[in-house]
Amino acid sequence: MNTSKIKHPLDQKKVVVIGGGVIGASWAALFLANDMRVVINDPQPGIESKVRVYVMRAMLALQALGHGVNAALERLSFEPDLAKAVADADFVQENGPERADFKSALWATIEQAAPARCLFFSSSSGIPASNQATQMQSPGRLVIGHPFNPPHLLPLVEVVPNPQTSRALIEASLDFYRALGKCPLEIRKEIDGFVANRLQSAIFRECVYLVSQGVITAADLDSVVTHSLGIRWATNGPFLSFHLGGGDGGFPHFVDHLAPGMETRWREQLESTVHFDEATKKLLVEQIENGYGDRSIAQLAEARDEREIAIINSGRKTAQ
Amino acid sequence: MNTSKIKHPLDQKKVVVIGGGVIGASWAALFLANDMRVVINDPQPGIESKVRVYVMRAMLALQALGHGVNAALERLSFEPDLAKAVADADFVQENGPERADFKSALWATIEQAAPARCLFFSSSSGIPASNQATQMQSPGRLVIGHPFNPPHLLPLVEVVPNPQTSRALIEASLDFYRALGKCPLEIRKEIDGFVANRLQSAIFRECVYLVSQGVITAADLDSVVTHSLGIRWATNGPFLSFHLGGGDGGFPHFVDHLAPGMETRWREQLESTVHFDEATKKLLVEQIENGYGDRSIAQLAEARDEREIAIINSGRKTAQ
Repeated sequence: MNTSKIKHPLDQKKVVVIGGGVIGASWAALFLANDMRVVINDPQPGIESKVRVYVMRAMLALQALGHGVNAALERLSFEPDLAKAVADADFVQENGPERADFKSALWATIEQAAPARCLFFSSSSGIPASNQATQMQSPGRLVIGHPFNPPHLLPLVEVVPNPQTSRALIEASLDFYRALGKCPLEIRKEIDGFVANRLQSAIFRECVYLVSQGVITAADLDSVVTHSLGIRWATNGPFLSFHLGGGDGGFPHFVDHLAPGMETRWREQLESTVHFDEATKKLLVEQIENGYGDRSIAQLAEARDEREIAIINSGRKTAQ
Repeated sequence: MNTSKIKHPLDQKKVVVIGGGVIGASWAALFLANDMRVVINDPQPGIESKVRVYVMRAMLALQALGHGVNAALERLSFEPDLAKAVADADFVQENGPERADFKSALWATIEQAAPARCLFFSSSSGIPASNQATQMQSPGRLVIGHPFNPPHLLPLVEVVPNPQTSRALIEASLDFYRALGKCPLEIRKEIDGFVANRLQSAIFRECVYLVSQGVITAADLDSVVTHSLGIRWATNGPFLSFHLGGGDGGFPHFVDHLAPGMETRWREQLESTVHFDEATKKLLVEQIENGYGDRSIAQLAEARDEREIAIINSGRKTAQ
């Protein structure tokens, strides 16, 4: 161990990860790679070995992203009793079942048992903080920290406070995820699906429409995206892209000259009929089998992780 | 010049680029970097120096992408007379004004003057080939080759034949763009906006909705995308992403368990009201000024090109 190394701001801080499934285990790996002590709280039998296997694999990715992972697994432990687990925690990252009643009872227990300094985050992609905090004394303490899968790899964390959360706590939440090397973004209103999943849903409707109409195959549509919009959006988001798409006139030019045509297209797109009916489901499943059936899910996932790491690393080398 | 170099399949082939604006000049640079002879046909005064300036700048990007650009500019010439320009052409790439009447007359002239071997491509993003070919003897000869801006950089070319185009000509069109190092994808039905622009339009409606509702700022939404969906979609398209998002069950699991929730969200999203009205336009322009106003369009475009090149190059180093 290099003792001259500057201490990580989260060094030896204790984070309790509730739920040792894929999301929880991925968070655990990220926390460990940031020098934290990690306690997994999950009553499921055999959880220890499952989490350890996932964490060891994720460590390879984290190393490829430049994290030091020395002695990381020595800081990982398991505590099935929730109150004991959070008794001296600095942070809680919850990844339990997506049921409001379950989460409400959970947070009431956590609030009782955890120290006042402890920050509370839920990874939920669907249940807003205000619906989870109904049994808490101080509901404002609970904040959504919604990662993008897999959490140890993709930088985004959607930070969604509830209306009672203080500005100071929002800033502390953003600071926590920044200290982990993530890119936390504040969502200013509770809304179903937050931002990233709503965008994904909106584009996917058009994807299903185009394939169901026979305009393009599913695998070719994937290639359209990876060779155009994906590269563009890994570089600049939609607004900045149209700011530059407007030429010297920038976004004001776009909005005056190109937006009206887009609004006409919106009307047409809204009128289209798209459903996951049996025929559509069958068509999509067949096309995906045709396009990707020669490789296993594990092989495809490994190729994805490798490529995503390369893109993230290439960004670090580029002057932004 | 290294005489031992294997000759490019397009070496010394003649391509006529109609229209020397940004799209035409970008195509010209790509063609030159692939050892072709390029003739620009554009009656606009001063077009020569404009195109040369653009091409020289684009050559730096093409070099960064691994293209040899030796003596490229010596193969660039200008011919304002359309019939003369196409007389011995192997390929035509048209980038004229987006007006069906203009293009119809243009293609009638080109068909008369060009050799029978010549392939005809239009860069149009909006006017299907069948609407441009109304005055041609053999309308099936005209195919859309729609690039993604900037054409010399982003790999996608949407190849959109018209119903009269032969299978052999579709394959020859795909081969041409592949020989240029592009990723051509066949669009199987003529449809307004083809594929990439329809997807972009669908997602942008939700972007405008979220910002207009105060859920997130425009610049933060851009960051959400670049740090999550952009990286994902530069790696895998939407269908493959959900194939992997379904875990071991793959896309069939997604379609049975997650798609119903997405369809519910579609209904909610379709009911939302989004217009480019004056208040929305003002809000968006202000937010983009706040987010990006500290840099010029040119600075932002240069940063974009640099980042896109890094992403494309990182893909070449990754085993796919």
